Amino acid sequence: MKVIADVCVIPLLDGQSLSPYVAECERIFDAAGLNRTLHAYGTNVEGEWDDVLAAVKRCHERIHEMGAARISTTLKLGTRTDRDQSMEDKTRSVEDKLG
Amino acid sequence: MKVIADVCVIPLLDGQSLSPYVAECERIFDAAGLNRTLHAYGTNVEGEWDDVLAAVKRCHERIHEMGAARISTTLKLGTRTDRDQSMEDKTRSVEDKLG
Amino acid sequence: MKVIADVCVIPLLDGQSLSPYVAECERIFDAAGLNRTLHAYGTNVEGEWDDVLAAVKRCHERIHEMGAARISTTLKLGTRTDRDQSMEDKTRSVEDKLG
Amino acid sequence: MKVIADVCVIPLLDGQSLSPYVAECERIFDAAGLNRTLHAYGTNVEGEWDDVLAAVKRCHERIHEMGAARISTTLKLGTRTDRDQSMEDKTRSVEDKLG
Repeated sequence: MKVIADVCVIPLLDGQSLSPYVAECERIFDAAGLNRTLHAYGTNVEGEWDDVLAAVKRCHERIHEMGAARISTTLKLGTRTDRDQSMEDKTRSVEDKLG
Repeated sequence: MKVIADVCVIPLLDGQSLSPYVAECERIFDAAGLNRTLHAYGTNVEGEWDDVLAAVKRCHERIHEMGAARISTTLKLGTRTDRDQSMEDKTRSVEDKLG
Repeated sequence: MKVIADVCVIPLLDGQSLSPYVAECERIFDAAGLNRTLHAYGTNVEGEWDDVLAAVKRCHERIHEMGAARISTTLKLGTRTDRDQSMEDKTRSVEDKLG
Repeated sequence: MKVIADVCVIPLLDGQSLSPYVAECERIFDAAGLNRTLHAYGTNVEGEWDDVLAAVKRCHERIHEMGAARISTTLKLGTRTDRDQSMEDKTRSVEDKLG
């Protein structure tokens, strides 16, 4: 089962930039061979369900190792059986309509 | 790694009640032996990360089998290393402050 | 336009309990006369769109005043034109199916 | 109060593409003069809180007018008082760390 996911991992830390933690997640997605696109409030990731979810788990493990005691992640998971659709298809389909 | 999750599985269907689909997810959480609490916009589930995420995958598989071609789930995942906390601890801690 | 919302306000703070911040949000919903139900990963709130969203804005303002420099909220917003449905209707409809 | 938002509006419709509905939301953000970036699972929008939230309300109103009886939106809302940060700053800050 293929999934298009949107992952927003938030370590509960104050007084510091969260970008090193987000960058570490990007590296985890890359190391897992997953196609990913960073945006301003998370990262789109596509791949097999088990691969994507294993990478999200690895993100939590690594961010705890980096020192964050608490993490709250918001994850969106889209699956469909009617046809195969990539992340790029989804954005192109909207952009075509915007002309 | 223990997780407190909030799961909101939305089958993209119109003209029909979504409650049979949500009820099926509740049965899946129960069958997995997970502690769960239904609310008006999702279900809180707590347990080991792998058990919770396997149940969410099973929800997608079942809802596709039940006839929904597209599903979009919003999942919140909270983990912490500083102390053990149950779903009940979380709500009680807030309610105590409300007096 | 009536909305059923799920509100999860997360102040980015470490080494302290978040429950005083969540409790403050509950007081804001109560002061606004909104029907609300706390759960382990947020609060269900129902009411007129403008009233609910004004209360969420007030939560951000108050939590910043309480000292949190950063806040990240996840909000779910459900509207429907086919029929009137309360939060209680939604959970009862699922529970009836679980027998 | 400035907000960086992530907006994912889902009309509950089956058997049809959702892209016309998403495109309509993009037009609403544009008409409101808001800076927005489409991604594969939503749209990042930045601006004054009231302007962004008024646009999200307008999206619900328009999508109901277009024929969807039910809508479920997932919204992330980030505010901060420590410094001014744009959506572009956020992604650049992570990308700089990825080299």
